[in-house]
Amino acid sequence: MIHRHRIRVRYGETDKMGVVHHSVYPLYFEEARTELMRALGFAYSQLEREGTLFPLTDIGIQFKRGARYDDVLELQARLTELGPVRFRVDYRMTLLETGELLATGFTRHASTNVELRPRRLPAQVRTAFSEALEEDSRE
Amino acid sequence: MIHRHRIRVRYGETDKMGVVHHSVYPLYFEEARTELMRALGFAYSQLEREGTLFPLTDIGIQFKRGARYDDVLELQARLTELGPVRFRVDYRMTLLETGELLATGFTRHASTNVELRPRRLPAQVRTAFSEALEEDSRE
Amino acid sequence: MIHRHRIRVRYGETDKMGVVHHSVYPLYFEEARTELMRALGFAYSQLEREGTLFPLTDIGIQFKRGARYDDVLELQARLTELGPVRFRVDYRMTLLETGELLATGFTRHASTNVELRPRRLPAQVRTAFSEALEEDSRE
Amino acid sequence: MIHRHRIRVRYGETDKMGVVHHSVYPLYFEEARTELMRALGFAYSQLEREGTLFPLTDIGIQFKRGARYDDVLELQARLTELGPVRFRVDYRMTLLETGELLATGFTRHASTNVELRPRRLPAQVRTAFSEALEEDSRE
Repeated sequence: MIHRHRIRVRYGETDKMGVVHHSVYPLYFEEARTELMRALGFAYSQLEREGTLFPLTDIGIQFKRGARYDDVLELQARLTELGPVRFRVDYRMTLLETGELLATGFTRHASTNVELRPRRLPAQVRTAFSEALEEDSRE
Repeated sequence: MIHRHRIRVRYGETDKMGVVHHSVYPLYFEEARTELMRALGFAYSQLEREGTLFPLTDIGIQFKRGARYDDVLELQARLTELGPVRFRVDYRMTLLETGELLATGFTRHASTNVELRPRRLPAQVRTAFSEALEEDSRE
Repeated sequence: MIHRHRIRVRYGETDKMGVVHHSVYPLYFEEARTELMRALGFAYSQLEREGTLFPLTDIGIQFKRGARYDDVLELQARLTELGPVRFRVDYRMTLLETGELLATGFTRHASTNVELRPRRLPAQVRTAFSEALEEDSRE
Repeated sequence: MIHRHRIRVRYGETDKMGVVHHSVYPLYFEEARTELMRALGFAYSQLEREGTLFPLTDIGIQFKRGARYDDVLELQARLTELGPVRFRVDYRMTLLETGELLATGFTRHASTNVELRPRRLPAQVRTAFSEALEEDSRE
C-alpha cells in the first residue's frame, strides 16, 4: 500500500538558496510516515503512550530538484521491509501540480521500549505491516 | 551580570530572504540562557534531571536588522525579574564584528515540576539569581 | 475577518519536555498568516516574486498550555493594524478537539523591497487588508 | 585531513524521546562542513557571494546512539570523493567526554551556479580539496 499525503512548504523551511533546506525532508518523511501508520489502522502517538518507540537507525535521501515556498508536495510512503524488531519505509516526494519527482528516500527503524532497548513490534502493528507488504507483493 | 555568548549562523537557519529566519532567534536566546545559568553556577540540564523545569510563559522579540549565514553573533543575556516561581531574562543580539544591534528580546519562565505544575525555584537557583539581580542594581 | 487554519503537530516539533518547542510557534503563525492572505485574495509567494517582502519587525507570544505530538491545532489569524508600510496580525491557537486555548500572539511586519528597504504596501494588498479591518470593526 | 569541530546540543534540538531529533544531524554535519572548508582555506559564504553553490544531491546517516541536551559533541568531517562538479564529505559524530560513537554519515554535493546548474568547482577549491584527499591517501 502506497499512502499519499500532501504538505505545503512553509516559508521558514526554505534557506538562502530559495529552496527547502535538506534538513526539512526528514520532517516531511516523518509526517508522511505518521499518516501511513494511521492509514494502516493505528496511531503512532498512541503506540508511544503504550511504551513502544520507533527511533530511526538509518536515513537516506536523494535530492533531485528543490521545492519552493508555498509549493504543494505529494509524499508517497510505503513499508518495504519488516522484521521482528525492525522495519523500513520508502518515500517519494513529487510536486503535486506537475508530478515532477523532487526526492526519494528511506528510513529504517528499530522497535524499542521507552529506554530505547529492542522490543518486538506489537502484534497489532506486525499484522498491519505484514498485510501492507503482502498487498504490495501481489501487485 | 550580563553574560556574553557567541553563536555562528548556520546555513540552514537562513530563509529565502537570505537572512536568519525569525523562528531561530528563540533557539539563540535559549542557548544564551543555558550559558547564563552555567555562568551563574548551575547547569539547567542537571536541574531538569532533578525535576525542575523552566518552560516559557512569554516571549517578545524586536527585529532590527537581519543576520546572515556565517555571521558571528554576540548574544547578551541578563536576568531582569525574579519571583518565587517566575523569572525573566532579557537579550541583546549584535553582530560581533561591528557591534551593530540586530535584535532585542525577552523570555519569561515559570518554575515547574515535570508535570509542568508550579514549583518554587530551587534554593541554589534562587540565591544565584538574587545575587545576579543585586549585582546589576549596584551598577 | 478571522481566518481559521488547522495544523497537526509533527513529532520533530516536540522537545524533551514532551510538548511543542516554543520556537515552532512562529512557524505555525507563519503558516496561518500565509493562509489568511490567501483567504484575502492574494498569495504571499506571488507578492515576493513581484518584489514585495513582509519581514517581521516584532513578535510576541503568550504560552498558556503545551501542545503535544499528533494534536490537531486550530490557528486563528486576524489583521489588527494597518499603515502605509506596516501591518499587524494577531493569533489564537487552540486545541481543535476541546477548544482549549494554548497560546496567543502577534507579529508586526514591514512592507519592503527585496533589499529590505521600506516600500508601500501594493494597492491590491492595501485594499484587501482595509476591507478585512473594516469588516471586523462592523462586528 | 580530518577536521574536528565541537557542537553543544541545544534544548530545542531534542524531541519527546529525550534525544536529538534526527532532522538536526544534517545541521550539525553542515556546520562541521563549513568549518572543514574554512580549515582548507576558503569560506563557503564567500564562495556563494561569488556565485558558486554546493547543494546536496545525497545524504545518508546511521544512528548508533542518541545525543542529549547540553551534550558536547565532536563532529569529524573529511572530504572522501572529488570530481569536476561533485564531491563527498564523510562524518563521524562522537560524544566528546567519552568518545562514544553516536552516528556516522555522508553528504554528496554538486557544484552549481546560482540557478543551480552544474558549474565546475572553482580552481582554488579544487586545489584545496585535491590536497586534502592526497594527504589522506598518504596516511
